[in-house]
Amino acid sequence: MVGCPPEGLLLDLDGVIYVGDLPLAGAAEAVAELRRRGVPLLFVTNTSSAPRSALVQKLARLRIAADETDVWCPLVAAARHVREHGGGPVALFAPEAAAAELEGLELLPAGAESGARWVVIGDLRERWDHATLNRAFRLLHADPGCELVALGMTRYFETEGGPELDVGPYVAALEEATGRKAIVTGKPAAPFFTSAVAALGLDPETAVMVGDDARGDVAAAQGAGLRGLLVRTGKFRPADLNGDVVPDAVLDSIADLPRWWDEAR
Amino acid sequence: MVGCPPEGLLLDLDGVIYVGDLPLAGAAEAVAELRRRGVPLLFVTNTSSAPRSALVQKLARLRIAADETDVWCPLVAAARHVREHGGGPVALFAPEAAAAELEGLELLPAGAESGARWVVIGDLRERWDHATLNRAFRLLHADPGCELVALGMTRYFETEGGPELDVGPYVAALEEATGRKAIVTGKPAAPFFTSAVAALGLDPETAVMVGDDARGDVAAAQGAGLRGLLVRTGKFRPADLNGDVVPDAVLDSIADLPRWWDEAR
Repeated sequence: MVGCPPEGLLLDLDGVIYVGDLPLAGAAEAVAELRRRGVPLLFVTNTSSAPRSALVQKLARLRIAADETDVWCPLVAAARHVREHGGGPVALFAPEAAAAELEGLELLPAGAESGARWVVIGDLRERWDHATLNRAFRLLHADPGCELVALGMTRYFETEGGPELDVGPYVAALEEATGRKAIVTGKPAAPFFTSAVAALGLDPETAVMVGDDARGDVAAAQGAGLRGLLVRTGKFRPADLNGDVVPDAVLDSIADLPRWWDEAR
Repeated sequence: MVGCPPEGLLLDLDGVIYVGDLPLAGAAEAVAELRRRGVPLLFVTNTSSAPRSALVQKLARLRIAADETDVWCPLVAAARHVREHGGGPVALFAPEAAAAELEGLELLPAGAESGARWVVIGDLRERWDHATLNRAFRLLHADPGCELVALGMTRYFETEGGPELDVGPYVAALEEATGRKAIVTGKPAAPFFTSAVAALGLDPETAVMVGDDARGDVAAAQGAGLRGLLVRTGKFRPADLNGDVVPDAVLDSIADLPRWWDEAR
């Protein structure tokens, strides 16, 4: 794998291109330079609460031109998985805006308790209740061929009011109730990376993931067969380099990526 | 273990003493006969939605005299576990009537998001929502020493409207969120049986569990070191005898238990 020249890039958004609403210095210029060299690239994010159109608008505000096909997220990975595995009715448990990402797929009517081929679980937050979780369970229980798809397995996130349950625990509840294992299409699961790479028409060993999370970006991508580059921005902490994760390279920021690319080629 | 004379009995309720609201023929007489012989016994049930007082009243209607100390349930087992491990504030996620079973323990005020030493999860059914599950999570997250106690791990139960999630999936969600493993005090976990036996002042190898569930009663009790007797009433199906569960004895019903007891002694 080492020595095989890189042919495409996956670029994490939060922590690599921007932090919250602020652009990182040199990010827009680096992306523009890579594009001038004709490098195939995708922006990748684990967000399943905002549609890609909102991310495209955010990138435009940071002077980075992109359209929705330039952004890879767990919902898009899930839609690709469903299409590649015969399609069929999808029951989506995610904010309504998410449904736009499943264009062309058959969505089960709200309230249906049978007839799903896929139960897709995203981040419903305060809209989770017993009746809703039970409906997801009944759909899976009603049909042994119905598959559980998780847009992520993040356990919780921090809010001003304290930590809050993310999608992972609800998926675990459904796994326990049904005895089935979820197909996880978000980071850090390997299908997230391999499906993004496939969308670029590349093989994993020729693709490079660039992220600020040593474990969730770098080690996870490496586990899926990609190279993993760590940037010293976003959630990066120097202690990340003392653990068992060994990035293929460490850059001060994405501003250094075009130079790294030239050297690696 | 084999050949060691039995010294006490655990009697499952639903399926052994009654089925739903109907008494099983000979049950009241068998219990009376065993008591005349002075056999130490406890009625054991996995119910965590009804307080023991309701079960005592139900037994009285079936002409079986009992007081609350004759009934063993996951809440009582949980209370025993808490007392034996230093006590401390308990946050109870169960129907309000359940709190009566925790008499003498310190209950955390409703709404508190820290300060619990024990988070006890029972069957809240339609009262589960994101805010409630999140509160249980925050209590555990706030204090690394806080322990998760599950009154059962049943996955679901059947209702007229269809299957409904039981306590197990919610416990699994909290296990996933916190990375901690629950202490399960309900059937089929071993502590349910061993704590009941301890409450009788006996050792597991001298106690006998009588149940209608080959796996959840008989095999589970055997796994905890007790003998397991299967009755051909309640949920018993002949196919239960073709599996890998080998009961220490199979009785047509609890009516045959006094004779079995005499022979085993």
